[in-house]
Amino acid sequence: MSKYVFHYFDTKALGESSRLLMAYGGQEFEDHRFSNEEWPAFKPKTLYGQAPILEIDGKQYAQSLAISRYLGRNFGLVGDTPEDALEIDQNVDLLNDLRLKAVEVHYERDEAAREARYTKYAENVFPDYLDKLNALVVKNNGHLALGKLTWGDFVLAGVFDYLKMMLRIPDLEKKYPAFQKVIDNVYSIPKVKAYADNAPPTLY
Amino acid sequence: MSKYVFHYFDTKALGESSRLLMAYGGQEFEDHRFSNEEWPAFKPKTLYGQAPILEIDGKQYAQSLAISRYLGRNFGLVGDTPEDALEIDQNVDLLNDLRLKAVEVHYERDEAAREARYTKYAENVFPDYLDKLNALVVKNNGHLALGKLTWGDFVLAGVFDYLKMMLRIPDLEKKYPAFQKVIDNVYSIPKVKAYADNAPPTLY
Repeated sequence: MSKYVFHYFDTKALGESSRLLMAYGGQEFEDHRFSNEEWPAFKPKTLYGQAPILEIDGKQYAQSLAISRYLGRNFGLVGDTPEDALEIDQNVDLLNDLRLKAVEVHYERDEAAREARYTKYAENVFPDYLDKLNALVVKNNGHLALGKLTWGDFVLAGVFDYLKMMLRIPDLEKKYPAFQKVIDNVYSIPKVKAYADNAPPTLY
Repeated sequence: MSKYVFHYFDTKALGESSRLLMAYGGQEFEDHRFSNEEWPAFKPKTLYGQAPILEIDGKQYAQSLAISRYLGRNFGLVGDTPEDALEIDQNVDLLNDLRLKAVEVHYERDEAAREARYTKYAENVFPDYLDKLNALVVKNNGHLALGKLTWGDFVLAGVFDYLKMMLRIPDLEKKYPAFQKVIDNVYSIPKVKAYADNAPPTLY
């Protein structure tokens, strides 16, 4: 069996979907978590200066969604046809579009600019994405795509707390109960639950 | 054979990689191009209010990279193993990170904010991405990944003029001759050249 090491901050954020997928697939991995203070020293050792990194037998791979898609394929979570895989990819990218909009706000260093953008996006941008994603999940019966468990569900479940924090909507799952169904569908899987119960607690 | 309709603005930008891939694969498609003025009326007819859209036998699929990955898979341009596919995905996502940074500048409506951000990114962000991408392409002998033609090359070739415009570097391919090699590797393919020679001329 290949040796997997997963390198990421000690948060869920962009790393948790891959950790959850490895738990689901029974893929043992070394869960290397580093602090914000350790990152500058580790960053130059990563492939492109980015995290997360999945290291397989010493070879590094970057980009959270690319890694999660790869794991999803290996564990039978990409549907049955190329069109199925496309549908998952497209819906994951819609979710990722929302995340990127939230990032535009959250990581703006100028406070006045950040708050002005937040006000604007909270009115015109976030609700539109959330409504679209909600409609998607309702249509897919508690899943992000294909009406069944795919790696896309792991992306939503893994990034959810991070997204809530950036969107500043602490009860997002109460406003959109369909999202809670996706989360429950993922975390109720015994192997995933076992991992989550033992993972270091983090806020997001 | 399935009926393909490709819906996008009358530009290359985020649509050209898929058009080039369909030309490469000999996949006939109706090339539905709309103007900025026509977009508001067409937008509500699209899956998630986004373009491009690939319509296959009447079913819509969204998201440019998801569509290009799908076409790449169908036309044998995803490498031989799951790890190959991951490597292409990761490098495409690095290129896309650069595009998203350029988008953050280009589509900022406030002129003062836009120019301030441009100055900052031109100094600290764009060169870093460009150097990383250049090193990648040099290492891969004129390709984005795997040292051979993949769908990633079509993404770089298709988005290049759009990227140059947003980065405000009209001679980007002269500063980074490796990028020109990727473009030449794509456009020298006879079927791709035949499409490009007959496509409506657009600036980017």
